[in-house]
Amino acid sequence: MSGGDGPNSYSKNSHLQRKTTSLLKEKIDKLVLEKLNAKTLISSDSNTFRIADLGCATGPNTFFLVDNIIKSIETSLRKSNSSKPEFLVFFNDLPQNDFNTLFTSLPQDRSYLAVGVPGSFYGRVLPQSSVHIVVTMGATHWLSSVPKEVLDKSSKAWNKGKVHYSNAADEVVKAYRDQFGRDMEKFLEARATEIVSGGLLVVGMCGIPKGMPFSNLADSIMYTSMADVLTQMHSEGLISEEQVDTFNIPIYSATPEEVTVLVVKNGCFTVESMELMDPTAWLKRPTNVEDVRHWMVCIKATMGSLFINHFGEHLLDDVFDRLTAKLVGLTEKIESSYREKVMLFFALQRK
Amino acid sequence: MSGGDGPNSYSKNSHLQRKTTSLLKEKIDKLVLEKLNAKTLISSDSNTFRIADLGCATGPNTFFLVDNIIKSIETSLRKSNSSKPEFLVFFNDLPQNDFNTLFTSLPQDRSYLAVGVPGSFYGRVLPQSSVHIVVTMGATHWLSSVPKEVLDKSSKAWNKGKVHYSNAADEVVKAYRDQFGRDMEKFLEARATEIVSGGLLVVGMCGIPKGMPFSNLADSIMYTSMADVLTQMHSEGLISEEQVDTFNIPIYSATPEEVTVLVVKNGCFTVESMELMDPTAWLKRPTNVEDVRHWMVCIKATMGSLFINHFGEHLLDDVFDRLTAKLVGLTEKIESSYREKVMLFFALQRK
Repeated sequence: MSGGDGPNSYSKNSHLQRKTTSLLKEKIDKLVLEKLNAKTLISSDSNTFRIADLGCATGPNTFFLVDNIIKSIETSLRKSNSSKPEFLVFFNDLPQNDFNTLFTSLPQDRSYLAVGVPGSFYGRVLPQSSVHIVVTMGATHWLSSVPKEVLDKSSKAWNKGKVHYSNAADEVVKAYRDQFGRDMEKFLEARATEIVSGGLLVVGMCGIPKGMPFSNLADSIMYTSMADVLTQMHSEGLISEEQVDTFNIPIYSATPEEVTVLVVKNGCFTVESMELMDPTAWLKRPTNVEDVRHWMVCIKATMGSLFINHFGEHLLDDVFDRLTAKLVGLTEKIESSYREKVMLFFALQRK
Repeated sequence: MSGGDGPNSYSKNSHLQRKTTSLLKEKIDKLVLEKLNAKTLISSDSNTFRIADLGCATGPNTFFLVDNIIKSIETSLRKSNSSKPEFLVFFNDLPQNDFNTLFTSLPQDRSYLAVGVPGSFYGRVLPQSSVHIVVTMGATHWLSSVPKEVLDKSSKAWNKGKVHYSNAADEVVKAYRDQFGRDMEKFLEARATEIVSGGLLVVGMCGIPKGMPFSNLADSIMYTSMADVLTQMHSEGLISEEQVDTFNIPIYSATPEEVTVLVVKNGCFTVESMELMDPTAWLKRPTNVEDVRHWMVCIKATMGSLFINHFGEHLLDDVFDRLTAKLVGLTEKIESSYREKVMLFFALQRK
């Protein structure tokens, strides 16, 4: 994510993500009211209700999300005539995240104690049995790293000239899928240790219906265009062939079926919800030229650091100017791509 | 504190502070072994031992301090044949602290989970009954703000032409002392809520023997010289008279007696240790020209942001170049000042 609060920053360009929060509010409300026995969870502990947002970035979306969860819990507790607990919120992201911006923009009038947790959620980041609700929105489709076979010239999964598994060889698709499987296994294992019995894990991430090729999706057009732009820039001598061939976006769209298999294998959770949703928000793809431009501003804020780390900061604007121009020309194609059930939402309860 | 890791940064200029940690190691070891029933504290909880460092700045001293405490607890637990708990460390400082530097410099091989807690320790920053040991080194002599009477032209405590209560009117001394009293009351009240029964609060801060005028101390020479430098810069038209008169350093050196009164008034703690120590470390004052220069580098790293906020970044180097030159000329006077029992160490146990 791009830190700070400048024009390219995540915190200034995450409006699309924000709407997801309202979309999910209803679902989370229902889960809290029907599944979470907040009263018992708190009284068996120290009157502190603990929430974690994993992959929180710099705000402000994480603050809306957390506020909604707290309101749901307060409603639930009022119904059972319980006294108001204290709330502690763990805001987690990678150590490189801009926590300074997150901390200085925490709402002044918040009704919770806030702590920041630096570390990858593919490992342990919180104490054992310490949290009642863990949410993570738009983060677990990010793999822990690019699958190594994809970067190996001697492998059949060597992803020459492409930036993603979309339209790539079957071996590339498998390498991404396997990496997601390993990552999600670690993710569930860590959360199983951290979440109290009866607690909830709520996830929203990129999804795709079972059997659908990724090339049907609007994002596929973006990834293909990215590769085209990089190839063009190589032909102009701006970047090397090696740089193009070794650049891959480590994002994976999962099906409900493959996540279900991983949850069952883990064995510590019951599945309370597992569905593909129509995204009206951060996964909604554009339908007109203005939308395309705005989409690219958001993608630049989200993925910019990948480009900066690989190609250098000086080429960031050039890459995105070319990409935006290219995609604006493909607006009709994007509009006719599959843009419906591409958000995977699932909620698990710790046994 | 100056963030980042550049030449003026706190993280690069905190060697003096580091030595304090080794000096205190023995004391903290003894407290943990003799006073803290780690086994009972952990087993009555969730097998997680929780430590907080309040006013941790950017490291690396906080990491040494925390490591030492964890080693003490592990020794204590080995003696009682207890299994090893998980450790969670809360690193607290003001929201403006450079948490990004703190988080990216966390030791890779650390044996604890780390979280950052943005907020003033003069209010609540941690959940109720959530921590077993709270330490704060070199932080609680910082007042929550400059006493407002000192900035009030119509008050007898108006501190015209000075930057500190040293050599100032009795009303100024009283304003600082009262502010410290109010702050320490809030500090103890918040800690009483956060620390579990049987837990420890360990504090190292600027101290002074009862009845000794502040003007006996080496720091007094520094504050007087600071005022001289600012007056000189005003006479050269670099800063306004208003700027000089409204600049005060909100640091207070407490006596063991006045802290004891506040602890008794609070009523939630027993005093396990309350003493003035010879500082071999961050409070040790210089005895030669090289020491004076190094002292000023440390003071610049610690207090630089106060000057930047009040006079602007462009004047920082000028102020400290003049101040260093002035103090170098006063080395003998500094050497003959009182530099012995000026570190107040106290340890309290939550009833």
